[in-house]
Amino acid sequence: MEFTFQVPTEIIVGQGCIRKNAEKFSQFGKKALVVKSASAEKNGSLADILHALREQGIEGKVLDSVPANPTPEDVQALCGYAPEFSFVVAVGGGSAIDAAKGVAVLAANDVPPSAMYDKSYRNTPLPVIAVPTTCGTGSEVTAVSVLTVGESKQSFSSPDLLPKAAFLDAGYLKTLPMRVMLDTALDALSHSVEAYLLADSWSNDMIAEQAFRNFAKYKEALERREFTDEDRALMLYTATLGGIAIYVGGTSAVHTMGYPITVLKDIPHGRACALTLGEYIGFVYDANKEKVDTMCKLLQVDGIRGFQEMLKGLIGETAVYTEEEIRGFVEIAAEAAMKKKNAKPITREDIFALYCKALCPQK
Amino acid sequence: MEFTFQVPTEIIVGQGCIRKNAEKFSQFGKKALVVKSASAEKNGSLADILHALREQGIEGKVLDSVPANPTPEDVQALCGYAPEFSFVVAVGGGSAIDAAKGVAVLAANDVPPSAMYDKSYRNTPLPVIAVPTTCGTGSEVTAVSVLTVGESKQSFSSPDLLPKAAFLDAGYLKTLPMRVMLDTALDALSHSVEAYLLADSWSNDMIAEQAFRNFAKYKEALERREFTDEDRALMLYTATLGGIAIYVGGTSAVHTMGYPITVLKDIPHGRACALTLGEYIGFVYDANKEKVDTMCKLLQVDGIRGFQEMLKGLIGETAVYTEEEIRGFVEIAAEAAMKKKNAKPITREDIFALYCKALCPQK
Repeated sequence: MEFTFQVPTEIIVGQGCIRKNAEKFSQFGKKALVVKSASAEKNGSLADILHALREQGIEGKVLDSVPANPTPEDVQALCGYAPEFSFVVAVGGGSAIDAAKGVAVLAANDVPPSAMYDKSYRNTPLPVIAVPTTCGTGSEVTAVSVLTVGESKQSFSSPDLLPKAAFLDAGYLKTLPMRVMLDTALDALSHSVEAYLLADSWSNDMIAEQAFRNFAKYKEALERREFTDEDRALMLYTATLGGIAIYVGGTSAVHTMGYPITVLKDIPHGRACALTLGEYIGFVYDANKEKVDTMCKLLQVDGIRGFQEMLKGLIGETAVYTEEEIRGFVEIAAEAAMKKKNAKPITREDIFALYCKALCPQK
Repeated sequence: MEFTFQVPTEIIVGQGCIRKNAEKFSQFGKKALVVKSASAEKNGSLADILHALREQGIEGKVLDSVPANPTPEDVQALCGYAPEFSFVVAVGGGSAIDAAKGVAVLAANDVPPSAMYDKSYRNTPLPVIAVPTTCGTGSEVTAVSVLTVGESKQSFSSPDLLPKAAFLDAGYLKTLPMRVMLDTALDALSHSVEAYLLADSWSNDMIAEQAFRNFAKYKEALERREFTDEDRALMLYTATLGGIAIYVGGTSAVHTMGYPITVLKDIPHGRACALTLGEYIGFVYDANKEKVDTMCKLLQVDGIRGFQEMLKGLIGETAVYTEEEIRGFVEIAAEAAMKKKNAKPITREDIFALYCKALCPQK
């Protein structure tokens, strides 16, 4: 077995962790750009960040809220070239944190947004500190940013974009709408499952298997749609484990297949992934029996069928798409999905079949 | 729950990983000091390191072998002030890696060895790359160096001493004497157990519990004194997990109590810790029932008694010490052991009693 293991981001966990660790911000300079989701006022995270920055004598410029599923142009519109700033604080879900990684590139370089992708920039991106306020993305511990490009999503990455620190305060989840709790929890689960089936690595197995054990602990809370503080804390932490898992293992066709569903049908990212995850596991089972069985056992579900039923319960009611719509998804996603590392090779026909089973089950 | 989690060291695992990743050395400069144990020729690690350095056009100066349980003066004698070097490669067991951390300080600063402890040095220590060739120390992923001072051991630490990379190639364990395999495996177990009982942290629990699961897998191999390649690979990796655990959780009185046994009686460090570990677990049980029970379950031993029996089996025949000798150990270790974080408060009398139970059981 050959693998590497590292968790470069300092992950700071606990209630009130931003105010309690305000000094962590001071090492990155005196002027910060704050990239936030619209919910950062309501959940209290923005106030905590601004308090910490003020306490450290740091000027914080709060940018406009990041829209859901931002494009590279949205990212540029947030700030653009701003070399007087020395670091970026990202607060929100995946859209805000991924946008912040783009801001970190564009603030340090007077370049068009395409430069994030073709790496035609010279200056090191600004350091990013991440404060996730959903229990999904994992972007707080990855080097990747995924933005909406055309009818799908495209990622760029650089070791410089790995957040230097991530603050996990589950108090910010208290005001999260129930649907966002569920969808982002599904995103986190998808990360751990996909990475688990891709990486041949003891450390990644440890991370993903722990995420499965944790999921089993709050699965009933998800099913009941009722969470204790302890559930929320474990869900936020487990989302970060999912991020660590994909930092090493990466994501697979499930993510790629989810992108057009999100972009064309406005289905939130985690939910879009969960829609095909169950069928994907069925598809790859023969190539990964042992791991899938272990996963189901740790998740405390009754085999693949139990896993699929659990996902359906958490997804709830869902739209059914026509064969024509599905052909549209295939057109957009197939090439990229086939190029991805997958738990077993996947063809365009497989992708069509998976979409059909998942999205128009009466067919 | 409040905790932090980070694994700053890049851990590279696999057969032949040094030669396969020779480019990792190049980022640290053109002149390397190689700090090695005496066994580094025999096990092939030194040849692999020198091959990788040569391939990258790096000059490597190999220092004299580090003696077991080196003192600060031993460390200074290895090299001293040598500002023309840009990084240190440490290869060997804990003695070599801990000595290398001292070399990293003293090569960059023209100071006496006491400066490692009182931090009266100005220049950042040289970066350290670690290649552990025993399955114990954990020093390849910690910021700490423990050297022999007088009749005990004393540690110094700095974030700069955290190895930048650790190469884990279990091939180097093939020539390790059986007794060293056993003693260092006991050291690693002690790290995971001690840190597990000290840290209130989901991440540290994950690391330690995985170490226990792994230990259960090779426990029979330890008992049989026969290892497969897979056993060795898992033992080496699990030792690094123990290092990650103490990087966050620290060690407890067990380690402190082991130091005089090592220094005065020449009992290898891991073995010295294991001698009192079983009784220590009995002592702290009432304060940590749930965790001790989980630990025993994951180790697949029958409760505390089973844990103690397993340790005895792995320690094998051992010297018995007189009450006077034990009073000597208490004199040296008690104050430091009481100051350590412990799974429950410990008094001088407790320490005496633990030593007696462990080292002169007929009393």
